[in-house]
Amino acid sequence: MIFRPSDRRDEIKEGKTILEASQEVGVGIESVCGGVRNCGKCKIKLVEGHLSPFTDEEAEFITGVERLEGYRLACSAQIKGDVIIHIPEESLAKKQIVRKDVRERPTEVKPAISLHYLELSPPTLHDTLGDFDRLQEALSEKYHLPSLEIDYQALLRLQSVLREGNWKATVAVWMGREIIDIMAEKVDKAYGLAVDIGTTTVAGYLCNLTSGEVIATESMMNPQVIYGEDVMSRITYAVTHPDGLEELHRSIIGALNQLIRTVTGRCSLSSDRILELVVVGNTVMHHLFLQIYPKFLGVSPFPTATHRSIDVKARELGLKAHPSANVHILPIEAGFVGADNVGVLIAEEPHHQDEMVLIIDIGTNGELVMGNRKKLISSSCATGPALEGAHIKFGMRAAQGAIERIEIHPETLDVRFEVIGNSRAMGICGSGIIDAAAELYRNGILDKSGRFRNEIKSPRLRVVDETTEFVIAWKNETSIGKDITLTQKDVRNIQLAKGALYAGAKLMMRRLGIEKLDKVILAGAFGSTIDPEKALVLGMFPDCDLKNVYAVGNAAGDGARLALLNRDKRAEADEIARKVEYMELSIEADFQKEFIEAMQIPHMEDSFPHLKGIVRDEILNQ
Amino acid sequence: MIFRPSDRRDEIKEGKTILEASQEVGVGIESVCGGVRNCGKCKIKLVEGHLSPFTDEEAEFITGVERLEGYRLACSAQIKGDVIIHIPEESLAKKQIVRKDVRERPTEVKPAISLHYLELSPPTLHDTLGDFDRLQEALSEKYHLPSLEIDYQALLRLQSVLREGNWKATVAVWMGREIIDIMAEKVDKAYGLAVDIGTTTVAGYLCNLTSGEVIATESMMNPQVIYGEDVMSRITYAVTHPDGLEELHRSIIGALNQLIRTVTGRCSLSSDRILELVVVGNTVMHHLFLQIYPKFLGVSPFPTATHRSIDVKARELGLKAHPSANVHILPIEAGFVGADNVGVLIAEEPHHQDEMVLIIDIGTNGELVMGNRKKLISSSCATGPALEGAHIKFGMRAAQGAIERIEIHPETLDVRFEVIGNSRAMGICGSGIIDAAAELYRNGILDKSGRFRNEIKSPRLRVVDETTEFVIAWKNETSIGKDITLTQKDVRNIQLAKGALYAGAKLMMRRLGIEKLDKVILAGAFGSTIDPEKALVLGMFPDCDLKNVYAVGNAAGDGARLALLNRDKRAEADEIARKVEYMELSIEADFQKEFIEAMQIPHMEDSFPHLKGIVRDEILNQ
Repeated sequence: MIFRPSDRRDEIKEGKTILEASQEVGVGIESVCGGVRNCGKCKIKLVEGHLSPFTDEEAEFITGVERLEGYRLACSAQIKGDVIIHIPEESLAKKQIVRKDVRERPTEVKPAISLHYLELSPPTLHDTLGDFDRLQEALSEKYHLPSLEIDYQALLRLQSVLREGNWKATVAVWMGREIIDIMAEKVDKAYGLAVDIGTTTVAGYLCNLTSGEVIATESMMNPQVIYGEDVMSRITYAVTHPDGLEELHRSIIGALNQLIRTVTGRCSLSSDRILELVVVGNTVMHHLFLQIYPKFLGVSPFPTATHRSIDVKARELGLKAHPSANVHILPIEAGFVGADNVGVLIAEEPHHQDEMVLIIDIGTNGELVMGNRKKLISSSCATGPALEGAHIKFGMRAAQGAIERIEIHPETLDVRFEVIGNSRAMGICGSGIIDAAAELYRNGILDKSGRFRNEIKSPRLRVVDETTEFVIAWKNETSIGKDITLTQKDVRNIQLAKGALYAGAKLMMRRLGIEKLDKVILAGAFGSTIDPEKALVLGMFPDCDLKNVYAVGNAAGDGARLALLNRDKRAEADEIARKVEYMELSIEADFQKEFIEAMQIPHMEDSFPHLKGIVRDEILNQ
Repeated sequence: MIFRPSDRRDEIKEGKTILEASQEVGVGIESVCGGVRNCGKCKIKLVEGHLSPFTDEEAEFITGVERLEGYRLACSAQIKGDVIIHIPEESLAKKQIVRKDVRERPTEVKPAISLHYLELSPPTLHDTLGDFDRLQEALSEKYHLPSLEIDYQALLRLQSVLREGNWKATVAVWMGREIIDIMAEKVDKAYGLAVDIGTTTVAGYLCNLTSGEVIATESMMNPQVIYGEDVMSRITYAVTHPDGLEELHRSIIGALNQLIRTVTGRCSLSSDRILELVVVGNTVMHHLFLQIYPKFLGVSPFPTATHRSIDVKARELGLKAHPSANVHILPIEAGFVGADNVGVLIAEEPHHQDEMVLIIDIGTNGELVMGNRKKLISSSCATGPALEGAHIKFGMRAAQGAIERIEIHPETLDVRFEVIGNSRAMGICGSGIIDAAAELYRNGILDKSGRFRNEIKSPRLRVVDETTEFVIAWKNETSIGKDITLTQKDVRNIQLAKGALYAGAKLMMRRLGIEKLDKVILAGAFGSTIDPEKALVLGMFPDCDLKNVYAVGNAAGDGARLALLNRDKRAEADEIARKVEYMELSIEADFQKEFIEAMQIPHMEDSFPHLKGIVRDEILNQ
C-alpha cells in the first residue's frame, strides 16, 4: 500500500482500515473522534486498487460528488489488495499538539532507555557464571556499562528469555543504571508514553524512543471530573470521603490504562512495549496520580509533599505498561505551580532567552511565569472557571457546537461567529467568551468598567429579568431553541478572571523591575485557541507587541514529551524548577488595588500603545 | 484469653486454634511440624474455659491420663469463649539457635538503617518549600545527608506524619541514600530481622539495629517440606505444577510472615517496626524465596539467575514488615554454593586467616570451602540425606526422642546413649548416626570397608532378613515398642555421604597444593551437634588436630545477622562471593577414584596421625 503525497509504503494485512494502516506506516491522518466514525475528519481519496464497500456512516460525511471522485473515510474503508491512497491536505493530521516551535528546534533524542544487543555464550560446567552476571559481563565489555542493577521483576524473567532467544538478547537499560527488560533476539525499537494530566483533559503521546517520533496521540476526559470540576473540589472529595483519595487515584490510573490500550492498540503494539513514561500535571493532579493525600494542598500555606521529580515503577501505581517501566514525574515549582508548568518551561525555555517573556497557562487556575535567562519568577492566581466556559450563562467546553470565534460589525452590530464542527451553535466556549467581551468593548457596547451601555439601540442589546444581555446568536441559528447571549453577570466573571491574571503579571513585572514585556506566550489547550488580539483588547495581560504574542497549545504536554525523549531535559526541569522563584500574590501588599484596577477593560490606568489602530481612540481613552 | 505462665493476654477470635492464638499474642509454643498435626510437640493444658472437642489426631499424642488432666494439642484445639491456657515447660518454644561464638567477637554495629531526629520549621506563605524538600534541607544541614531519595510509599505518609509530630520527626535512612520511614517525634530504636531459610528449618533473629542486640529468635519448619524434602524435589514440584513456583514462593513468604508475627509479638513490637531484613539460604531456597523459576538450577550446568546480592522491597515480596523496608539477600557463590554459605564465610572469615581452613556445611547437600587469606575455593557434593537421618532405618530429625550421642563399651559392647529431651528413644538423628558408625568401627565391629564382622559374638550383632544389624537400643529402652538398630545398609549410606565429603576435601587440597589442614569448621545446625572426634574417626574429613576442629552451629544465620548489623559485612560478602573459586567436583578426573577410596573408614590410603590414642593401632592399621 502506498500513501500519497508522502509516498510512504508498507505491506499491510488485508482487512485493516486505512486509518489503522496509516498508523502502522506512520502517516498522519486526521481523526478527531479516534476512529469511532463520528467526526468525518479522515477523508481520503482512492487512487488505485480496491477497498471494502461504501457504508452508510461514510455517506453522512461524504457528498455524492465526492463519492464519485473516490473519497472515503479512512476509519471505515478496509484494504482489499494493493492500493494507492491520496491524503488531501485537509485530512493530513494537524499536529496541533506537536507544536511548530518544537519541530523547529527538535530536541536531541537521548531517552532514558537504551537498547543493547548481545550474543552470549551459554553456561557450561567449566563456566558456571550466573545468567545475570554473564549478561553484566557482556554489557560491560561490549557497551561499557559496568555495575548495572536489575529490576526485580526483570530478574524473574531473565533466565527464560535468554534461553528462548538461544542466548541472543536485547537488554533495555534505564538511565544507564538499571536493566528493566530483557528481550529474546534483536529488538531495535523502544517505546515510551508522555502524559499530561489536566484537570479536565488527559493527553497522551506514544513515542518511538529510538527515532523520537510521535506515533500516536490521544486525549480523553479526566474521569475525575465526576468528583468535582476543579482542583479544590477534588481535594474536598479526597479529604471528606473515607476512600476518596483511593477512588480519585484509581480513576486517573484507570484512565491512563485506557489511554495506553488505545494508543498501543492503534499501532498494534503490546502495552508492555512501553518501557518508560513521563507524566506532568498540576500539583493536585500530581498528588492524586501518586495517591498522596492532598489535604495540605487545600489549606494555606498549601505545601506540597515534594517539589522534586520522582521515578516510580509503573507497577507500583497500577499502570499497565511494561511491569518494570519507570514513571518519571516532572518536578513541581511551588504550591499551585505544578509539574505541568515545568513542562511548559522546558518546552518554551524562557531561561535560555534574553527577551522578557510572560508565559500564561490558563485553566481553572492561571499560572504565570515571567523572566528571562537571568531570572524567572512564577505565580498562580485563581481565575475561576469563567475562561473555561463555566459560570457563564451559555458557557460550554470547546466541543462540537461551541461558538469559538465572534466578530461584531461596528455599524450594524451584527454578529458573525464560527462554531466548532461547523454545526449549529449550542453555547460559547472560552475563546468565544473572550472574543465576545473584547468585541463588545471595542464597539462601545461595554464601557471601560464592563457595564453594558443600555442607551445603545439594538435588538441584540436587551434587558431580561432586570439583567442586560447581548444576543450573540439568535434562536434560529442555534440548536438549543433559544437565543445565546452574554449577560452582565458573565461579563463580570470574565473581568474577575482577566483582572486576576493582569494583576499577577503586573506585580511580577514590578518584582523584576521591568516596564514592558517583550513576549507573551499563551499556553494550555485553551490558551492555544485564544485570539491574541482579543485577549490584548480585553487586557488579559499588560501591553505587548501583538507580533510577539503566541499561542503554543499544550506546551505542558510538549514538555512531557521532551523529557521522555531527552533525559537532559529532565535535568533541565529539575534545575529550572529549583531556580524559579515563587511569588505568593495573595500576600503582596498591593494585590487588591492592582486587582481592582485590572478589572477595567483593558485597564484603569495602564496604557496600551499596541492597541492603537485596533481599538478606536475614543473608546481607548474613555 | 490468657497464657500462663507468662500471663500474656489478648482478645482472640473464636474458632482459632491455640497455636494460631499464641502466634498472634506472641507466645512461643513448640511446633516442629508447623501445625500439620504430626509432631505432638505442642501439648498445652486447659486451665479454665472451653475448647473444641478432643480429636482422634490428638489421641495419638496424648495419653488417657494426660487427657483427664486437660492436656490438648495447641494445633488442634480451637478456642470457644474465654480460656486460660497453661504451657508446660517442654512445650515452650526452645531458643536453641543463638550461638556463643558471635557473641564472643561482636561486630561493629553499623547497620543499613540510620535514624535522624529533626525539628523543622513549618511552612508559611513566605516559606512554601515542599515537605520533602524541607526535610531534605534539614537532613543536609544537620546530618550532612544531601540528595537523598525517598521511597514512594514513605512519601505517601510524609505529610501526615510531620504534622502528627508537630514538625518533630525521626527519619530512617537506608544505606545513606534512601529515606524509608518518617516517624512522628523522637524515636531512637530501629529493628531488623535476619533470616536463614534452610531446606528444612527457617530461623529468624530479631535485632535491635541501634544496639546490635538480638532481642528474639525463632525457628520453625520450612513449610515447603510438604512439597518435597530436598531441594531437587522442590525444583521438580515448581517445574511440573502449573502454579508450583507461586505455591512454593507463597509458602515460604507465609512462613516468614508468621515468623515476623511471632518475634515481634514476643517483644510487643508492631511488625512495621522492622525496617530491614537480611536473608540467606541455599541457591534453591534463594530462588524460591524470590520467586525465580528454578528450572535451570535442576539441570546441568545448574546456572543461577544471579550471583549478586539483591535488595528488594519487602512489599514486593509480600513480606509484612515495614512497607518500605528493604530485604537484602546475600550473594550466591556458584550453583549449589548459595547465600547461606556466603553467610558462613562472613561469620567465620577464613579470608582473614593464615591457617588453612576447611569449612564443612552439612545438610542434604554438603558445601565445602577451603583456603585462607590468599585463596579460597568452594565445592559442593551430594551427600544424600543420610546424615540428616533420612534413608536410615531408624533415622529421624534431631527432635525430642532422638538418640544424639552413642558410646560403645570396648569390652562388653554395651551401648550408652543420650536422647534429646531425656525421653525414651524413638530413633537416631544425624549426630547419633555418626557416633554409632564411628563407635562400631573403633570397637572392631565394623571393618575398614564398612562391613559388619559377623564373627563377633554379641547379642547386639545379629542377622535379620539376611541383613546384619547392630542393636543400639533395646525395645524396652524405646518408646516405639521395638529395638532401634543400625543396619548394614545404613552403614553404606553413611559411607556414601562421608566419602563424598572426604573426596571433595581431598581434591580441593590438591587444587590448593596443600598436604594438611590447620583447622576444620563444622557448620550448619546439624554440624554443631556432631562430635568432632567421632567425625574424624569416621573419616568425614582429612586428618586434623582435634584441638582445631570446631562446631559452630548455624553460621549461615550468624552471617545473616552480621550483615544485618554491619553493612561493611555486606560489602565483604559481595567481595568474597566473587573471589571464591568454585570447583565442580563431578568433572574432576579423579573424583570417582577418590570417592571410592574415601568410602573406607577412615580412608583406604590416607593416614590419620591425630587418631593415635583415639583408635587402637590394630584397628587403624588393618
